Amino acid sequence: MTMFRLRIAFRHLKFYRNRCHDMRTIITKKRDRGKLTTSEIEYFVKEVVKDDVDKAQIGAMLMAMFIQGLDSEETASLTKVMTYSGRVMEWPEAWKGLVVDKHSTGGVGDKVSLVLAPALAACGMKVPMISGRGLGHTGGTLDKLESIPSFNVSMTDKEMLKVLTDVGCCIVGQTKDIVPADKILYAIRDVTATTENIGLITSSIISKKAAETLDVLVLDVKMGQGAFLKDEKSARELATRMVKAGNSSGVKTVAVLTKMDSPLGKKIGNALEVDESIQCLHGNGPSDLTDLVVSLGEQLLFHAGKAQTLDDANKMLKATLNEGKAIAKFCEMMKAQGVDPNVAEELCEKGKDVYEILPKAKHCTEIKAKQTGYVEDIEAMPCALVSLKLGAGRQKAGDSINFGVGLELLTSVGQQIKEGEAWLKVCHDDEELAKAYIDVLSEAIHIKQGSSQTAQESSRVVDVIT
Amino acid sequence: MTMFRLRIAFRHLKFYRNRCHDMRTIITKKRDRGKLTTSEIEYFVKEVVKDDVDKAQIGAMLMAMFIQGLDSEETASLTKVMTYSGRVMEWPEAWKGLVVDKHSTGGVGDKVSLVLAPALAACGMKVPMISGRGLGHTGGTLDKLESIPSFNVSMTDKEMLKVLTDVGCCIVGQTKDIVPADKILYAIRDVTATTENIGLITSSIISKKAAETLDVLVLDVKMGQGAFLKDEKSARELATRMVKAGNSSGVKTVAVLTKMDSPLGKKIGNALEVDESIQCLHGNGPSDLTDLVVSLGEQLLFHAGKAQTLDDANKMLKATLNEGKAIAKFCEMMKAQGVDPNVAEELCEKGKDVYEILPKAKHCTEIKAKQTGYVEDIEAMPCALVSLKLGAGRQKAGDSINFGVGLELLTSVGQQIKEGEAWLKVCHDDEELAKAYIDVLSEAIHIKQGSSQTAQESSRVVDVIT
Repeated sequence: MTMFRLRIAFRHLKFYRNRCHDMRTIITKKRDRGKLTTSEIEYFVKEVVKDDVDKAQIGAMLMAMFIQGLDSEETASLTKVMTYSGRVMEWPEAWKGLVVDKHSTGGVGDKVSLVLAPALAACGMKVPMISGRGLGHTGGTLDKLESIPSFNVSMTDKEMLKVLTDVGCCIVGQTKDIVPADKILYAIRDVTATTENIGLITSSIISKKAAETLDVLVLDVKMGQGAFLKDEKSARELATRMVKAGNSSGVKTVAVLTKMDSPLGKKIGNALEVDESIQCLHGNGPSDLTDLVVSLGEQLLFHAGKAQTLDDANKMLKATLNEGKAIAKFCEMMKAQGVDPNVAEELCEKGKDVYEILPKAKHCTEIKAKQTGYVEDIEAMPCALVSLKLGAGRQKAGDSINFGVGLELLTSVGQQIKEGEAWLKVCHDDEELAKAYIDVLSEAIHIKQGSSQTAQESSRVVDVIT
Repeated sequence: MTMFRLRIAFRHLKFYRNRCHDMRTIITKKRDRGKLTTSEIEYFVKEVVKDDVDKAQIGAMLMAMFIQGLDSEETASLTKVMTYSGRVMEWPEAWKGLVVDKHSTGGVGDKVSLVLAPALAACGMKVPMISGRGLGHTGGTLDKLESIPSFNVSMTDKEMLKVLTDVGCCIVGQTKDIVPADKILYAIRDVTATTENIGLITSSIISKKAAETLDVLVLDVKMGQGAFLKDEKSARELATRMVKAGNSSGVKTVAVLTKMDSPLGKKIGNALEVDESIQCLHGNGPSDLTDLVVSLGEQLLFHAGKAQTLDDANKMLKATLNEGKAIAKFCEMMKAQGVDPNVAEELCEKGKDVYEILPKAKHCTEIKAKQTGYVEDIEAMPCALVSLKLGAGRQKAGDSINFGVGLELLTSVGQQIKEGEAWLKVCHDDEELAKAYIDVLSEAIHIKQGSSQTAQESSRVVDVIT
């Protein structure tokens, strides 16, 4: 008999299978390195958000996707389907072209959002920034903001709309009904060792941003030993994939590849980073932080058509920092997000000691250089780990945060330093700083004899991918 | 800082993770093609049988195992650990060396168990045969036996012990507390498209047999278009893997590679196969069936030390069939398993029309040869599919069985046949046999002009792997 007729007979048989049939067929396809169609991906995501979903199937599918990979078309489909697994935001017609946001893959000392959102609002943009909490070695924007007394990151859509209308920016947590598929998948990916996959990462990040109904999105894709991606190749690959998925979802998306070997700015920790952000908003931030804020923001202004050239956009942003407009927006945003108006204004007063308001650690310990020379490198990862262990971050979900603790760099890469000179201040609550931490930190700085070849730290921006 | 110290710091961090930690570490290892240790496999199986197991993790792990594979050592470990996930059987000291069983990977018309168990019991062996039900194209031994009125396949351990003491063999269904890990894993493998993996198949089959606490196990590994494994290479691979896992679990294991292109014997269907088994037990079975029963049985008798040579074992088994001892044991077994003694004896009466007792289909349709020549091939798969569709098997778990329907071959491979001569009898309950079935079956026979090169069908045994 012909194989064809036999196959027909078999197919007929298969119709009798239970409801798992389709899911199993899709799993089988990906298991065998097949390329999933949009409708297959749609079926999968619909199953994911069902109440009676078979979690074993989701786990198996995620593992098959992880090992066999998703190509950029599959990733774009998954992103789009996930975006519409829940509610997507809607903005007034008049805001068309103005709604922008940024996403960072996470670094050490990364307080860019706190400065960028108000700076963009000061340029007339609408920034409905939905941020996350810290877990692991990178801090969370929401945690940083919560070191400000009464700062409220939980907002309804209606409240967000009002703040965006009045102020132009807000920084809030994820709401329940935005991309429910991601919440479910993320929790399952976490326990099934299927997190670090380019397709799954992309769809998780971009779907949440696409559900914000943005006009332009800029991605800060960090690479280096303090980043999630260590090498340029994988960072570039992720950036390209995310740009494609974002554009496919109808959001003009640009990725900026940036270096994350040493901490960004000089301060690590929640209140410490709010402090540094306020300095930056006053136009007095460390050069690497200010440079990065402007580099990311200029892409948004330019691609939104708010500036004719990148150079114009750059100047606009710098002006908001130098002329007090950005700090004023930050002050308005704090008030709109629950902070006492007097407290908000005091915090934004130039020259004010913010620690009269922000939490402060009980003790400080200085770490001293062991030799003379110039600072070749300051490793971000050990700084992040010690900061985390001191209580600035969460070792597991649900841990509480100690807002006052953290680190302050007293030098930066390229600077000269002398033996015995303090290069780092550790802010901690315990009377004595554990020797293990001192040892770990002492080895985080690399001092080379002679004088630096590059007096000024070079820009963190490696490339822009559109 | 040294990577070593950083790693220590990270490891320290990881201790804070939730209870999923270890499972995730093991999943990660297999995901990345690592080789799992016995203790890691043990941890996995312990998780599987837990009440609050995270099914997503099991699904992900099975998919990682499926794609990245399990080597023969991992398979042996998994088999052993699964065996002890529940209760294992215990037999009287006096039976040492006598407890044997057979497993078949499944074929069409495979009624070997019904003949082999009584024949071995007639040789003085103890055969605690635990069988399965049919699903898909292969029939199930339990379903066949249940076409005998009142035949009971559910037995407690105590009842099994009594039957084995009195009769020497029984054929029963799986009890609940034997290899619980397999029941859970099998159900998950079914919905997650992770069934057809050599390591997982091996551990599932062998763990259940090892839990019977056997002295010798013979595996009938079938290959060909009517079998689960189509080619010799994969059949040989599975056979070798199962032999190793069985021996590692303390059961002397032998695999016999056998051909499954055309149906075994002449009858397919439940009552039809009981009928043919009874003929075979009387010494009047079709030669290929009798040959296979003896080929499998002789391995058991020889390796159990019951016969000095394979040839002696062969003779012993043939004698039980030809001298009425095997049919007598079958009769005793039926009585011990709930069949009315008079019914059992009538069924075993030589020359008796068993359809006075067994269910019989209402109608018969003959399929005729379309040309003259010799039978080059009769394809097993279309025969199996039609039989299944007529109601002899289950298209999905839980379907009821029609015991009377099935097929009877009126010729066999190598025989001469004339155009218009009936070569197949189809037994069905519907008044008319659907044309689609007639078409499918008509193409299942391959007739070649001229006369056969091999007058007699060659043995189905291809090789023995020890």
